[in-house]
Amino acid sequence: MQLALSTWQEVERYLEHSTGIIIPIGSTEQHGPNGLIGTDAICPTRIAAGIAEQEQILIAPTINYGMSQHHMAFPGTVTLRPTTLIQVVIDVVTSLHRHGFTHFYFVNGHGGNIAPVTTAFSEIYADLQGDISHPVRCKLANWWRNDAITRLAKELYGDAEGYHATVSEVSLSYYAHPEAVKDMPIHPAIAPTGDIYTAADFRRQFPDGRMGSSPQLASIAAGEQFCNLAVDALTADYRHFLTC
Amino acid sequence: MQLALSTWQEVERYLEHSTGIIIPIGSTEQHGPNGLIGTDAICPTRIAAGIAEQEQILIAPTINYGMSQHHMAFPGTVTLRPTTLIQVVIDVVTSLHRHGFTHFYFVNGHGGNIAPVTTAFSEIYADLQGDISHPVRCKLANWWRNDAITRLAKELYGDAEGYHATVSEVSLSYYAHPEAVKDMPIHPAIAPTGDIYTAADFRRQFPDGRMGSSPQLASIAAGEQFCNLAVDALTADYRHFLTC
Amino acid sequence: MQLALSTWQEVERYLEHSTGIIIPIGSTEQHGPNGLIGTDAICPTRIAAGIAEQEQILIAPTINYGMSQHHMAFPGTVTLRPTTLIQVVIDVVTSLHRHGFTHFYFVNGHGGNIAPVTTAFSEIYADLQGDISHPVRCKLANWWRNDAITRLAKELYGDAEGYHATVSEVSLSYYAHPEAVKDMPIHPAIAPTGDIYTAADFRRQFPDGRMGSSPQLASIAAGEQFCNLAVDALTADYRHFLTC
Amino acid sequence: MQLALSTWQEVERYLEHSTGIIIPIGSTEQHGPNGLIGTDAICPTRIAAGIAEQEQILIAPTINYGMSQHHMAFPGTVTLRPTTLIQVVIDVVTSLHRHGFTHFYFVNGHGGNIAPVTTAFSEIYADLQGDISHPVRCKLANWWRNDAITRLAKELYGDAEGYHATVSEVSLSYYAHPEAVKDMPIHPAIAPTGDIYTAADFRRQFPDGRMGSSPQLASIAAGEQFCNLAVDALTADYRHFLTC
Amino acid sequence: MQLALSTWQEVERYLEHSTGIIIPIGSTEQHGPNGLIGTDAICPTRIAAGIAEQEQILIAPTINYGMSQHHMAFPGTVTLRPTTLIQVVIDVVTSLHRHGFTHFYFVNGHGGNIAPVTTAFSEIYADLQGDISHPVRCKLANWWRNDAITRLAKELYGDAEGYHATVSEVSLSYYAHPEAVKDMPIHPAIAPTGDIYTAADFRRQFPDGRMGSSPQLASIAAGEQFCNLAVDALTADYRHFLTC
Amino acid sequence: MQLALSTWQEVERYLEHSTGIIIPIGSTEQHGPNGLIGTDAICPTRIAAGIAEQEQILIAPTINYGMSQHHMAFPGTVTLRPTTLIQVVIDVVTSLHRHGFTHFYFVNGHGGNIAPVTTAFSEIYADLQGDISHPVRCKLANWWRNDAITRLAKELYGDAEGYHATVSEVSLSYYAHPEAVKDMPIHPAIAPTGDIYTAADFRRQFPDGRMGSSPQLASIAAGEQFCNLAVDALTADYRHFLTC
Repeated sequence: MQLALSTWQEVERYLEHSTGIIIPIGSTEQHGPNGLIGTDAICPTRIAAGIAEQEQILIAPTINYGMSQHHMAFPGTVTLRPTTLIQVVIDVVTSLHRHGFTHFYFVNGHGGNIAPVTTAFSEIYADLQGDISHPVRCKLANWWRNDAITRLAKELYGDAEGYHATVSEVSLSYYAHPEAVKDMPIHPAIAPTGDIYTAADFRRQFPDGRMGSSPQLASIAAGEQFCNLAVDALTADYRHFLTC
Repeated sequence: MQLALSTWQEVERYLEHSTGIIIPIGSTEQHGPNGLIGTDAICPTRIAAGIAEQEQILIAPTINYGMSQHHMAFPGTVTLRPTTLIQVVIDVVTSLHRHGFTHFYFVNGHGGNIAPVTTAFSEIYADLQGDISHPVRCKLANWWRNDAITRLAKELYGDAEGYHATVSEVSLSYYAHPEAVKDMPIHPAIAPTGDIYTAADFRRQFPDGRMGSSPQLASIAAGEQFCNLAVDALTADYRHFLTC
Repeated sequence: MQLALSTWQEVERYLEHSTGIIIPIGSTEQHGPNGLIGTDAICPTRIAAGIAEQEQILIAPTINYGMSQHHMAFPGTVTLRPTTLIQVVIDVVTSLHRHGFTHFYFVNGHGGNIAPVTTAFSEIYADLQGDISHPVRCKLANWWRNDAITRLAKELYGDAEGYHATVSEVSLSYYAHPEAVKDMPIHPAIAPTGDIYTAADFRRQFPDGRMGSSPQLASIAAGEQFCNLAVDALTADYRHFLTC
Repeated sequence: MQLALSTWQEVERYLEHSTGIIIPIGSTEQHGPNGLIGTDAICPTRIAAGIAEQEQILIAPTINYGMSQHHMAFPGTVTLRPTTLIQVVIDVVTSLHRHGFTHFYFVNGHGGNIAPVTTAFSEIYADLQGDISHPVRCKLANWWRNDAITRLAKELYGDAEGYHATVSEVSLSYYAHPEAVKDMPIHPAIAPTGDIYTAADFRRQFPDGRMGSSPQLASIAAGEQFCNLAVDALTADYRHFLTC
Repeated sequence: MQLALSTWQEVERYLEHSTGIIIPIGSTEQHGPNGLIGTDAICPTRIAAGIAEQEQILIAPTINYGMSQHHMAFPGTVTLRPTTLIQVVIDVVTSLHRHGFTHFYFVNGHGGNIAPVTTAFSEIYADLQGDISHPVRCKLANWWRNDAITRLAKELYGDAEGYHATVSEVSLSYYAHPEAVKDMPIHPAIAPTGDIYTAADFRRQFPDGRMGSSPQLASIAAGEQFCNLAVDALTADYRHFLTC
Repeated sequence: MQLALSTWQEVERYLEHSTGIIIPIGSTEQHGPNGLIGTDAICPTRIAAGIAEQEQILIAPTINYGMSQHHMAFPGTVTLRPTTLIQVVIDVVTSLHRHGFTHFYFVNGHGGNIAPVTTAFSEIYADLQGDISHPVRCKLANWWRNDAITRLAKELYGDAEGYHATVSEVSLSYYAHPEAVKDMPIHPAIAPTGDIYTAADFRRQFPDGRMGSSPQLASIAAGEQFCNLAVDALTADYRHFLTC
């Protein structure tokens, strides 16, 4: 059940039986030579849609822009200041909390969002703690960080899975948007690895944008596998979260 | 050409022949008894897609949340603080400007965004004015405010077009998402009109969320007409904007 | 009745019969070769004084600085950042609301203030909406935007009225400050028109600061006419506003 | 020479021989039973006008609202948040500095402004220090804090001068606005004294708003004396400031 | 070499051979029935002192207050808003960077600081990236998160080490402040575990403030062991960091 | 009684008999050729410890970083933006106020902190004024500004005491940290005096960092005298403050 495609009266009825909601959050940033700039928003949007197909769970519109400061040396990357992203998350949760929602489950597609979104949760707890009638619970679920996904990626690609523009995320984005699959030679086969500092330094270390990955191995078929695994794992986790 | 479905190298090539970009911006707010909560994001997203079908214009991911403070007494509405929205617009423009973009054309679906987005433009001009090498130009195009759209709405619905949850926008959202068409009786036929103050006051004046409109007249066919008119009008306006 | 010239006990008594107040807001910015830098503050201050002469309405001190970013390439212009102006308006309204005022009527002299002041109203409604005992109503009245003023300007000057440093506002400021009338030749007779972007661009397009106007036509006598019309129109509008 | 009554070309010429400017700053707050709410803005405005009568010094429009948090339990008082006032001062100085002004002399009428305005100066020095071509100097001149004024007040009123709603400031405001003189009995003859904490506490300690003063002693004639002394002292101090 | 005990000329000489600095950061929050409120500041301060004993490394004064929102239901806890802590870290790094420091190594004592400090690093990279002459590198070293520490804690306490008010940190604080050792019975032997949400919820779940730990096992002797291990591990890590 | 060395249950018991707390606040900034960069934090920390030795008063951890913008041209100086320091003070007081503390006594070591900390107090009074159950009182005690200290400094050093890197503060820091005493020739004997503007200007006027002082006269013995005087004076003042 998509919030964007519902009426306010449908939401009113939804709140009678559930006060939980799923919010996909991504970013708009380079993902190497054959990865889509929207990858980090596309993956959680697709996974959330999969969850909603299975059961009556309300899905909020995707937050398409995230904290991508370190990718800014690559054209097309857009970054929110960390403090802007913090405020966006606060505003979205605070608005929905006013209507009676209590459990906010963010399906996240981007590692760079973790620090600011977690920071936002602390601000939210500080601001809303006085409201005892319906306490607030927030959770950030990074779709790629769970045993099922990690195991499959290891099995299929070993170390070539990498850290940015990973094979799994590029696959999942291709599964969601087969019309956008890019086919091209990529060298070297496996990208270098290293630490992340400034944007200029990132580009110097990782000239084509990949970190440790071989996204030329990506496929629609693998993307479907990753998507199904993520849908199952996150549906179970969300159900448990509702009981906290 | 969707930014989300492009690679950074494709954007690099795009910048060789154009430094303009279209950014759809909407809101997530009640649209009366049969209107979709996502209406204001859905319409500019659909119109921007139509523009991109015609020619090689880069379309950024939609900003799905806007300034909807006055609709907050209806479940499902999400509002950014005006200052948050200002910061989001600043960050998106500033990021893209760093890559060499100069002309930012926002296709807007929501009246409540006009004041904060215009405010953001002033901040952007103040911040980026020192960069003489590639000056910045921003424009906010409210899709429903042009002669072609107004004339058709007047012709089809007369005064029943209204001011919020208008027949034209509900029609356009149905055209974009036929799976979400809602069919229901609505009373009174035409909603009341009045001024906008606080959220509580809005709900008291406009109990089902409509302002002056009869969205039960909405249809997919009319939505297609509105969409085509908007695509043509905004494509022409965008072309002119690039020359400023 | 000027707030600045009253005691707190006089305000206490005023609040027994009215909870409305008028707040003039202007700017400090260039107004062409013969227009005063204070024009946009002088006009609403003079109009508000005229309203107060007619009846017992409380007038707050003028907010002398506004959002004038686009005029910053002309010496003497002062601009608040839009977010600063937003905060000033919030603080003024919030302070007075605490004493029991409920209706805030801003007489505005400057187009550039419209977006930030409107934005401030949304923040105010969000912040103060919990206070049901005395709800808040804000209105921005742009003195030059009403039928009586527009008709007279058209009649007297046709297209030479223009968009910035208009004949009507220069006239009104001369009426308020006859000691500051400037007499000088101005070329070309009618200034060019165009869109507003950055400050540098503004000066390039409009080298002497005028937009589309012939302020050399300004006169004290016409200023008196504009002032009287504005006083009448805004007094009526304010009275209606109090009933909302 | 009033900035508000000048044209931008007159300012351009002024800058050829001086880069100093005087900015009156006040507040809008209760001043006891017979003192004007605008006292703290009226006094520096009148003194600045006196300075400008003597020589060619540019005077900016008055900042009419200040930091008056502790007076908020009295109707009619308006306070900016300290951080808002800080930002206003930063914006005014930064704007004028861009045109070439280097010496900013604030004539202040209100003790509560001292901490935030001084804080603003530190922010300004931090922000503008990179601009070596025209370095910035700010000074806050509290008109009532100089030997000449203190001596006369002591001579005329002894301890009855007090700390808030002082006899000297009420006199000076009466001199500036004889039409607003209030004549009334005031008890007790001398108001109590004490420390300043919250607004509620202030009203409890100082029920009619005065601190330690007998403003019933105020007179237009004394106001003229105080004004002349202040004009002379501040003119000399300003001249010296220009040489720093 | 303590920055607080050095002169500016000694720092000037230090910068001739190193541009790295260590900054201890902690918090002021409850640490269970026998743990010190200053634990998270005391541990990194003591470890940093140990590092400085070994070699010529400059140690900045400790940031004593951190992000402890979730402990606020226990008396004595102080929390900075996450955005305040972000700003403190930005200001400290930016100041030192201006003097020529390039490598900022934060020794952190508190898990709740991780998200805001990491967020601050992103803001710093965004702000300072233009300065190519001496690029900036930041690292957050959480002293308790390294193999040596984890192994010893496991060996000594098994699961009784816990997650908050851990045996290792209480031991280390006792080693640093033997005068403050608290001896008392604690029940139950091992505290409960769970997720962290609001402050009220934290106190309900963890009534005496511990999470999963048995801090009654803490001892000065074990504290010395943990301290030595941390000093060695972080000295090595810092040396490597300087080469990045 | 040090908050950092207490448990939350000890604080709970403390609150049963007192709701006052002392908070040392300093800075990290150059103090001339032989003065310690930590002087302004070391002095209030030492004085607060002295007060706590005499009676049961709770001492919070020291705020080690202050507003030192004007010293930034000397290596090793760290400055918080004034607005950051304001926020730190607000957060510390607000946190402790939530636990029931009502009287916040800041022992301050640095003149540059006065404006921002005083500003913070105004914000705190505005924010917390609604809480009638336990009203808030804040006081900033500048240790060097009291008759006993001033008299001794005058007696010992006459004019050579100076304004920054004073003999008294360097002495007190030496008394607190005898291991850090620096012995060196200093020329000229007495440093120049002048006004404070930007950091660059400060260094030009005061090349070795001193303002009007001869800190080569500093001694541990004098430091002990100053410390004892300050402890006595501030203990008495604190006791009085608790009764306000």
